[in-house]
Amino acid sequence: MTEIMMPWSAHINLDNGLLWHPRRIITRHLSDMADMYRDPDAVKAELESRDPLVYRVDEIEVPQEVGHLLYSVTVIYPGKVGDEFYMTKGHFHVREECAEVYVGLQGRGYLLMQTRDGWCTHLEMQRGTVAYVPPYWAHRTINIGHEPFVFYAIYPAQAGHDYRSIEETGFGMRVVERNGQPVLIPNEQHGG
Amino acid sequence: MTEIMMPWSAHINLDNGLLWHPRRIITRHLSDMADMYRDPDAVKAELESRDPLVYRVDEIEVPQEVGHLLYSVTVIYPGKVGDEFYMTKGHFHVREECAEVYVGLQGRGYLLMQTRDGWCTHLEMQRGTVAYVPPYWAHRTINIGHEPFVFYAIYPAQAGHDYRSIEETGFGMRVVERNGQPVLIPNEQHGG
Repeated sequence: MTEIMMPWSAHINLDNGLLWHPRRIITRHLSDMADMYRDPDAVKAELESRDPLVYRVDEIEVPQEVGHLLYSVTVIYPGKVGDEFYMTKGHFHVREECAEVYVGLQGRGYLLMQTRDGWCTHLEMQRGTVAYVPPYWAHRTINIGHEPFVFYAIYPAQAGHDYRSIEETGFGMRVVERNGQPVLIPNEQHGG
Repeated sequence: MTEIMMPWSAHINLDNGLLWHPRRIITRHLSDMADMYRDPDAVKAELESRDPLVYRVDEIEVPQEVGHLLYSVTVIYPGKVGDEFYMTKGHFHVREECAEVYVGLQGRGYLLMQTRDGWCTHLEMQRGTVAYVPPYWAHRTINIGHEPFVFYAIYPAQAGHDYRSIEETGFGMRVVERNGQPVLIPNEQHGG
């Protein structure tokens, strides 16, 4: 017999992205992803004085089953490590056939995507941008502005997160500041 | 071999819900759902002078496969037929294990939900409300205010729409105006 879940609602402030109330809050400090930035000396220098919060994800919770939908609000704080903009760790879905939809709420960001075959592309996001991460694309977001970059994300609840592939190989491109602007440069450490 | 879809984006004005650009626009006039309202005389009188647009759905398009996500923006215009507020037709998902997430953008509405067993419940929605329609619940939205009720909806792309069950039995509850306020009353024609 099928167990029936009762309907429920939460609230998102569509101006600043505040989710009320989240079931779980994930915080990522620089020390949680120290190996992901290109400049080890800049990471080390930063960590000697402080361990900044790079991003935060507020999530709700539903069964991780086909048909259910998980959503979250991510805040990437403004900042750089050396010349490289603050970013999320990035991941593939374990169930790689699962897409994800992002809705920009505040700030400016890049959505960097990559396939297993090494195709790499990006979309620029701002308030109101609805970005589609198709199946089979790893995805990472980057704050390229001077205020928090906030977006709403929704994905099939069975998707799962594969962080390891990105930890091992990185993305093929990095987003760094040049003459005050964000630019994409090849990742020389990319093992893909 | 898996065909890789390229990433893409659209834009939603988060103040008024304008989706740019939609792939498909569905319009429902009163004549498209004349049998769904409780007062046949009020329907007939209205249709003698005009056939008002009750709601509109702007949709994007993706493959209707497990893992993909479909989204749309719905605008229910303010109005009543007799004392019954403008509403959508309402449907079950063909794949009943599929949930749906609604995000209120403008106006005020009710989200009316019902199971095959005849359980009936509702959530009130306004800007920022994120409502979860769990698997196995038919869902209908109703504009209970004086301005357009606008919401963003997202659901698994394989869900499908079963309108017929609702056309045959209706929902167990209707939303009508009493003393200037929306109230739920039992649907006497409910065949469930």
